[in-house]
Amino acid sequence: MTPVNLSEKLSLFSSHWDPKVIADYNDNDVMVVKFQGAFPFHRHADTDDFFLVLSGEMRMAYPDRDPVTVRAGEVIVVPAGQVHRPEADAEVHVLLIEPKGEANTGDSTAPAAAKDRI
Amino acid sequence: MTPVNLSEKLSLFSSHWDPKVIADYNDNDVMVVKFQGAFPFHRHADTDDFFLVLSGEMRMAYPDRDPVTVRAGEVIVVPAGQVHRPEADAEVHVLLIEPKGEANTGDSTAPAAAKDRI
Repeated sequence: MTPVNLSEKLSLFSSHWDPKVIADYNDNDVMVVKFQGAFPFHRHADTDDFFLVLSGEMRMAYPDRDPVTVRAGEVIVVPAGQVHRPEADAEVHVLLIEPKGEANTGDSTAPAAAKDRI
Repeated sequence: MTPVNLSEKLSLFSSHWDPKVIADYNDNDVMVVKFQGAFPFHRHADTDDFFLVLSGEMRMAYPDRDPVTVRAGEVIVVPAGQVHRPEADAEVHVLLIEPKGEANTGDSTAPAAAKDRI
């Protein structure tokens, strides 16, 4: 019940593709994350994937359709099962919501990043 | 999988305490809402209540503890069962996430606002 300032939390780390848990919503981790470059294609078999761009601009890329640009102040929800990857030419800051225990990489064979709490 | 611009969605209505669904995340409604004034005290027995202030400033008030100010760029999650009410001296814009079917008013006797989709 204490407000969490997202900019303050984002100032605490500089790593990319390394989400940090900043709040809990039911059985979900509410995270901030910095993206730069391209993540491996992956999917989450059993959950949607929620992204809100806080600053900067990213693309959500798909193997089977055109990428879409997602800018600051925009939400994109990738449905369960949809193969996707975030891409960012320059660093972008994102609010990310996923169920607790869900690997960043879904069912990909890429290693799951730890979800630290800050 | 289409990005949703929150400012554009907020420009489509002017009513207060009238959340509009702009996306779905698993079994949750992702909504934008405008607050001004004070909502009735209420609680959600079975779910947390997620708020991200997008612009402006609000207070989260509780009958049993001091209110907290929540500013633009800040998240507050009210735990399930906690009696609370949002208050705003001037209009504030908020991203709100609640499970589908949950009334704004939780188990309060106040009427539940409809959750329109825009």
